[in-house]
Amino acid sequence: MGKAAKQAAFTLATASTRQKNLALSLIADELEANAADILDANKKDIELGRQAGLSEALLDRLLLNESRLAAIAGDVRNVISLNDPVGSEIDHKVLENGMSLARRRVPLGVVGVIYEARPNVTIDIAALCLKTGNASILRGGKETFYSNMELVKVIQNALAKADLPAACVQYIEKPDRELVSQLLKLDEYVDMIIPRGGAGLHKMCKENSTIPVIIGGFGISHIFVDQSADLAKSVDVVENAKTQRPSACNSLDTLLVHQDVAAEFLPLLVERLNDKVSFVAADNAMEYLAQAKQLQQAKAGDFDTEWLSYTLGVKVVAGIDQALEHMQVHNASHSDAIMTNDLLSAERFINSVGSAAVYVNASTRFTDGAQFGLGAEVAVSTQKLHARGPMGLEELTSYKWVGKADYLSRS
Amino acid sequence: MGKAAKQAAFTLATASTRQKNLALSLIADELEANAADILDANKKDIELGRQAGLSEALLDRLLLNESRLAAIAGDVRNVISLNDPVGSEIDHKVLENGMSLARRRVPLGVVGVIYEARPNVTIDIAALCLKTGNASILRGGKETFYSNMELVKVIQNALAKADLPAACVQYIEKPDRELVSQLLKLDEYVDMIIPRGGAGLHKMCKENSTIPVIIGGFGISHIFVDQSADLAKSVDVVENAKTQRPSACNSLDTLLVHQDVAAEFLPLLVERLNDKVSFVAADNAMEYLAQAKQLQQAKAGDFDTEWLSYTLGVKVVAGIDQALEHMQVHNASHSDAIMTNDLLSAERFINSVGSAAVYVNASTRFTDGAQFGLGAEVAVSTQKLHARGPMGLEELTSYKWVGKADYLSRS
Repeated sequence: MGKAAKQAAFTLATASTRQKNLALSLIADELEANAADILDANKKDIELGRQAGLSEALLDRLLLNESRLAAIAGDVRNVISLNDPVGSEIDHKVLENGMSLARRRVPLGVVGVIYEARPNVTIDIAALCLKTGNASILRGGKETFYSNMELVKVIQNALAKADLPAACVQYIEKPDRELVSQLLKLDEYVDMIIPRGGAGLHKMCKENSTIPVIIGGFGISHIFVDQSADLAKSVDVVENAKTQRPSACNSLDTLLVHQDVAAEFLPLLVERLNDKVSFVAADNAMEYLAQAKQLQQAKAGDFDTEWLSYTLGVKVVAGIDQALEHMQVHNASHSDAIMTNDLLSAERFINSVGSAAVYVNASTRFTDGAQFGLGAEVAVSTQKLHARGPMGLEELTSYKWVGKADYLSRS
Repeated sequence: MGKAAKQAAFTLATASTRQKNLALSLIADELEANAADILDANKKDIELGRQAGLSEALLDRLLLNESRLAAIAGDVRNVISLNDPVGSEIDHKVLENGMSLARRRVPLGVVGVIYEARPNVTIDIAALCLKTGNASILRGGKETFYSNMELVKVIQNALAKADLPAACVQYIEKPDRELVSQLLKLDEYVDMIIPRGGAGLHKMCKENSTIPVIIGGFGISHIFVDQSADLAKSVDVVENAKTQRPSACNSLDTLLVHQDVAAEFLPLLVERLNDKVSFVAADNAMEYLAQAKQLQQAKAGDFDTEWLSYTLGVKVVAGIDQALEHMQVHNASHSDAIMTNDLLSAERFINSVGSAAVYVNASTRFTDGAQFGLGAEVAVSTQKLHARGPMGLEELTSYKWVGKADYLSRS
């Protein structure tokens, strides 16, 4: 599979945007034309999942229906409308010796994607890789095996009709876990591994892969309410960050409040969130949260917990220094925000917080490819190499240096 | 060491360019002030190396003297003059909702560097990391242990005088190999590993590291002489690529010649290179190289060999397709060039060759940070993630997304 993918990547690297878009358009069409087969296969997955005792929440994530399938086809058509980054040049310059030098965007080559649950990832990631001229090797979760088989068939049909090699998109069918380990060692053929799933999957990939892995999605999200903040507006933003979609990795975990405004701000917040949110408070915040319906004292580890729920950690701090200190110790690496009207505090916060996305007076919920105008989101990286934060199409490319001259030798 | 480095990186991340330049300037001064001690220590390394039976060539690489030390100090002063990329913003835009969004360059954090032989790497890499606000953990070869100890002392003195934490630059002193393995697993504290050494070192790092590794420096370099090329000028470029510095990884390994011009071009080349170069020829090139003083028939594996010497592989190809095919099979991944006057062939070659640097009518020897105007070269990457080709200061940075708004919530 590695060899076939590398060979296909060689063809894809020089495929025109028109040809790649044709394949994408055919995938969208085939999805609609084969809806019945796909939904049948998905029924089988759901039944098996129910027998295996999967939770209703998980089953819902696995479920495909007419409207979800239409949405997936719509997403593919959206990818067609995005700019193809391949071939564009950056940092062009002419050197003293007359050489014209630029970096030209090229596909990465072969991307390995290991994911769990949702079958839409199969189409989604295959489409994004195809658009950027990358061959992909996919490995989905066993819970959606039958759905994925149908989806891969759709992709293969579309590739054939678009006159592109079948190996542009391959799927590891056998359930054997050993195959994943083997994929992670194919550094001769595979250029990047994207794990899409829980922390365990990311850890496994990082520890076993000889191929660069995009690690992402984890980290405690903080908001620091500075003494200069507009408190009423800050309540709005904190509410949004905590409650708009608590299960998202960019939703708020820990609220840090400047001691000078805690007595005013926290009661306002409790008033707003009391029906939804359960507070976990440091000792020094307890008194200001007295009106909370659900209130617990923070235990060891609570400020290192990604809640992914309606729970909110709260702590009062002496000022921005203590806030930064807390965040450094408690894994601020994803999305963090300061509420402030003070320019120096804002810049200080931006520069000192080691997170992929830092906000001034905005909700942490904005960390998202679509919100950032990237058009698509391949993954959210919390590592520092290659790409950080939401990854769009450009982040599925590398570059090569292109030097043109008039028979030039180095002196 | 990992913890201390991460802590130091936190301080360095917000250090001003002025403070970082002060530290660099002090390093240069201290190098000069402590020249006698450094050279004494180096004498000890050289003596021990001689006793251990190291080759004269290797001993020469280890050797420091007044002029080499002055050059190292000069290199540090050159780093002062380079732009500090930290804090600059790229891709600034204002989103529909009013958020001002940009990517701001930030240091990577902590860089681990494992290197062999030349003691100048100690100063060189410490200076580049310092300039970009990265803490570094260095591990040099045992052959330059005493030299490195003195150099690290110089760095530490300079850091102290510049009021920067000592842990900004740390050195793993103990010879224990186990410590290298431990360094490679410190993914909680270290953000990037740069191996500077042979293929074995790179392989070891790739296989054992849970931290992203910059792989670089390897690959067969090709020049394809197309039928439309100016043959006389192509002889100049091939001579330069092969003989200007044969031991460099960007020097020419394999020459591919279009069959229509082989009978004219190859004898010209032999005439020019006959006193220096030893030819290793595919069957189909033998007849055109008949006048060569040193000529052998290519054996299996010869076209997969980085010669790093005055040996040159030669093969005649039917055209650009066959040239590209050969290069795909024989690991073209570093620096490759086409000699041509044909525009379509040039673009075809650029787009189809999967190398970090591709040239039209220029020597492969140009792949170099200084030649590319990067001011400094951290490493030459042949991988596709993060950075490709010569890495300068920018490639020692990551970015964070910075979003500023007026108390904005996601809808």
